[in-house]
Amino acid sequence: MTRDGRTAYSLREIAGRFGGEIAGDPEIQVQGVATLESATPDRIAFLANARYLPQLKTTRAGAVIVGEPARNSTRLPRIVCPNPYAYFARVSVLFHPAPPLRPGAHASAVIDGSAVVPEDVEIGPGVAVGRDVRIGAGCIIGAGCSLGDGVAIGSGSRLHANVTIYRDCLIGERAILHSGVVIGSDGFGIAMEEGRWLKVPQIGRVVIGNDVEIGANTTVDRGALDDTVIEDGVKLDNLIQVAHNVHIGAHTAIAACVGIAGSSRIGRYCRIGGASGISGHLTIADRVEISAFTLITKSIDRAGTYTGAYPFEPHAAWRRNAAQLRHLAELAQRVRRLEKRRKPPKRSKP
Amino acid sequence: MTRDGRTAYSLREIAGRFGGEIAGDPEIQVQGVATLESATPDRIAFLANARYLPQLKTTRAGAVIVGEPARNSTRLPRIVCPNPYAYFARVSVLFHPAPPLRPGAHASAVIDGSAVVPEDVEIGPGVAVGRDVRIGAGCIIGAGCSLGDGVAIGSGSRLHANVTIYRDCLIGERAILHSGVVIGSDGFGIAMEEGRWLKVPQIGRVVIGNDVEIGANTTVDRGALDDTVIEDGVKLDNLIQVAHNVHIGAHTAIAACVGIAGSSRIGRYCRIGGASGISGHLTIADRVEISAFTLITKSIDRAGTYTGAYPFEPHAAWRRNAAQLRHLAELAQRVRRLEKRRKPPKRSKP
Amino acid sequence: MTRDGRTAYSLREIAGRFGGEIAGDPEIQVQGVATLESATPDRIAFLANARYLPQLKTTRAGAVIVGEPARNSTRLPRIVCPNPYAYFARVSVLFHPAPPLRPGAHASAVIDGSAVVPEDVEIGPGVAVGRDVRIGAGCIIGAGCSLGDGVAIGSGSRLHANVTIYRDCLIGERAILHSGVVIGSDGFGIAMEEGRWLKVPQIGRVVIGNDVEIGANTTVDRGALDDTVIEDGVKLDNLIQVAHNVHIGAHTAIAACVGIAGSSRIGRYCRIGGASGISGHLTIADRVEISAFTLITKSIDRAGTYTGAYPFEPHAAWRRNAAQLRHLAELAQRVRRLEKRRKPPKRSKP
Repeated sequence: MTRDGRTAYSLREIAGRFGGEIAGDPEIQVQGVATLESATPDRIAFLANARYLPQLKTTRAGAVIVGEPARNSTRLPRIVCPNPYAYFARVSVLFHPAPPLRPGAHASAVIDGSAVVPEDVEIGPGVAVGRDVRIGAGCIIGAGCSLGDGVAIGSGSRLHANVTIYRDCLIGERAILHSGVVIGSDGFGIAMEEGRWLKVPQIGRVVIGNDVEIGANTTVDRGALDDTVIEDGVKLDNLIQVAHNVHIGAHTAIAACVGIAGSSRIGRYCRIGGASGISGHLTIADRVEISAFTLITKSIDRAGTYTGAYPFEPHAAWRRNAAQLRHLAELAQRVRRLEKRRKPPKRSKP
Repeated sequence: MTRDGRTAYSLREIAGRFGGEIAGDPEIQVQGVATLESATPDRIAFLANARYLPQLKTTRAGAVIVGEPARNSTRLPRIVCPNPYAYFARVSVLFHPAPPLRPGAHASAVIDGSAVVPEDVEIGPGVAVGRDVRIGAGCIIGAGCSLGDGVAIGSGSRLHANVTIYRDCLIGERAILHSGVVIGSDGFGIAMEEGRWLKVPQIGRVVIGNDVEIGANTTVDRGALDDTVIEDGVKLDNLIQVAHNVHIGAHTAIAACVGIAGSSRIGRYCRIGGASGISGHLTIADRVEISAFTLITKSIDRAGTYTGAYPFEPHAAWRRNAAQLRHLAELAQRVRRLEKRRKPPKRSKP
Repeated sequence: MTRDGRTAYSLREIAGRFGGEIAGDPEIQVQGVATLESATPDRIAFLANARYLPQLKTTRAGAVIVGEPARNSTRLPRIVCPNPYAYFARVSVLFHPAPPLRPGAHASAVIDGSAVVPEDVEIGPGVAVGRDVRIGAGCIIGAGCSLGDGVAIGSGSRLHANVTIYRDCLIGERAILHSGVVIGSDGFGIAMEEGRWLKVPQIGRVVIGNDVEIGANTTVDRGALDDTVIEDGVKLDNLIQVAHNVHIGAHTAIAACVGIAGSSRIGRYCRIGGASGISGHLTIADRVEISAFTLITKSIDRAGTYTGAYPFEPHAAWRRNAAQLRHLAELAQRVRRLEKRRKPPKRSKP
């Protein structure tokens, strides 16, 4: 059920809220969202990727959200809009609002007396809140979370169960931190001295802006001296490593399993593909896209897409080709030698 | 000590339970399992990999489990069987049964009154169980686990400490979920609109079949609209990312550090090597093997082994060869030009 | 404030503790450490990497720690020493000692009566301590940690919040385990039998030496039969996977996102770059360095640096070159054919 207690909306009502142009019957009612493939007649589906155009022909959906190019690809009642995926996101929120919070701290939560926790905050079982923690209005702190001394969390944020935030780290407003996230663990700072590693104290913080979402089991290390910084609107997927003193520019989105080494600075509106890596002490410009499985080893000063994944093959073919990789410099040398050979005696043109 | 209170079994007794043919003294008693390398005379070891054949000559084990090809490679009392590793697994379970559960919920566990928890379930300290959760008979839920509203877990399952399951996700029977596992976190669904990312509600679930084991700190995201599905008998190692709407076929085994992007469909009986990746929206056939460190970027419709790792070298050699990679298309072009040069004037054969 | 209650030290006092040679005013007082870039005049900064030499000219620091080569690169009061980074680490510890522990177990911790917990140990809220656990003097166990039956932790160790240690694992002295670390989860041992995977019981332990630090969300699996071993002084970054029966030699440092497959043996003083991988059953010699994003597929018996990352390029260039990779063996063949062509008739030298 939606937030206002309704279970169905007509296309006319939806377009009234979110804009777009209706084609077909505006009075058709839908009760939820679905994919083209699995929609039933009481659902509204969407087409955001031409890959799924064939499904538009066969869907059982009662209505669809499409872009201008697909306006005439269906006879279903439809909303035509410039950005069907974003439009769909808004309609989906209409039908699936975040569950209401249940204000108050569970009796088993351990909250230091010095912590500032507004009444409308929900704190789950077994949560540990340290000294001088400040939690903003309307936050939900899931079961088993641990907030170290001096942590501050902006209003409207949600920490799912079992998130850990080390002391003095700052989280902005409307953050979503998924389970297993660790914010503010020590950066990997070690100095070799006489055959032993000395630990370098990590005394910076993690400072996270507003509207940041961080996926399950992602780790963000605190700065060594200065802070690790994640700007507004950054979206991090699961199992990402953000090392000490990294700086991620606003609205950059990073897919799962990425590792970003220490002190690298990533621009705004970048998109970083899954399982890629960024070496330390680099600067990546705004609007850079990095493909999956790519290691960036030098700074990038121009927007664009950068790639470095090895193309896969059936194993036997890979084996033949990869074996030659070890001789590639030599092969190039041999080609140079061939080129240097005197050209064969000229003959008259045929 | 074994489940039936015994501390030793003879080869005759073991073969009576699990089959196989005894060669040598069937009355020899063993008190446990061990590797060939570290076995003492009261242990039974096994040979499942020809790599360890030399150790068969030197082992101090009292008895061994071998396949037909190694039947005569030792004079030790032995059990000869078609699948020594599986046989060994069964013998190891005989000596090391799962520890008995201690029925009942710890006083510090927080269990919603609407949850269904049979009496023979063990629930550890600090566990949080949400509304309408259903836990099957004989489950063990380790300390600090969090089960969201509406979660269901099949009978005989074991959640180690600090597992998180988001609301409405379904886990089958005899599941083993290791510590730090997160099931049902939001998929990475974001839509760009006017310079900001909109969150796309993730309203699907995670649905996991029977006999699934999931390794430590692995994450499985809930579906965006439809469900993320893991079929029966799937085995996932540690630190794996399974994105929204992925479908993993029955009995597929995936090694650690793998990332599977959204909506990809992996067949049955696949084996996926460590730190490999599968791009989104792909279909992988049954019985495909993917080598470690390989990124799969296209659907695979035939069983077989596929590989795409860069072969490592001493750094200086790598540097020389990798530098040429950036000129490979040009090199191929130059070779084409060389081939097009008129052949030198024919001479009579020597 | 420092451990002895002081807020400032002169260079003379610092050099009195840690050695080094003072150049410039030895009475200058500093109140903390900082980077060259962000230091204020009450701070001491350091230069450990020639990359930051330009910042030495512009820093506002009151004093600096430099190596011999940079002795005359600044007129600031300075300490000249052989290893500025290690020296800085010591000075940083002087100003930022570990926070004092608060002895005693929180009322919400659940500690089995058979556990040995000295009085000076700090145990946080919601910790679960199993049977026969032994915790050494001066340990801090953070909120939500779970220590399985039979676990032993050496004196002076620190477990941050939400660490899980499975039963019977041994942790040495002065360990630092960051949040989300899982020690002793089952190794990935499965045997295929008649279309189903049998679980192979994992009955080894994890045995960790002294002075080991393990980063957030890193997982270390218990041995299948023998133990998984991490020797003294090993430093592991975040999100690393250490599989069953791996052996990591003393003082080896491993960067984030690395995966080490089963039974591999890594030498002492190795340095392993981020997101690299080591296949199973290999032996890596002492003092081997492995570059980031490199998969090691064969044993390495000599110290040195080994690399295997694909060099990244702008996407269009990568596409052209990577396409040729699939034809590399054929290209080499074509070059061989070109070389075999009879050489053109010799001419007199020009």
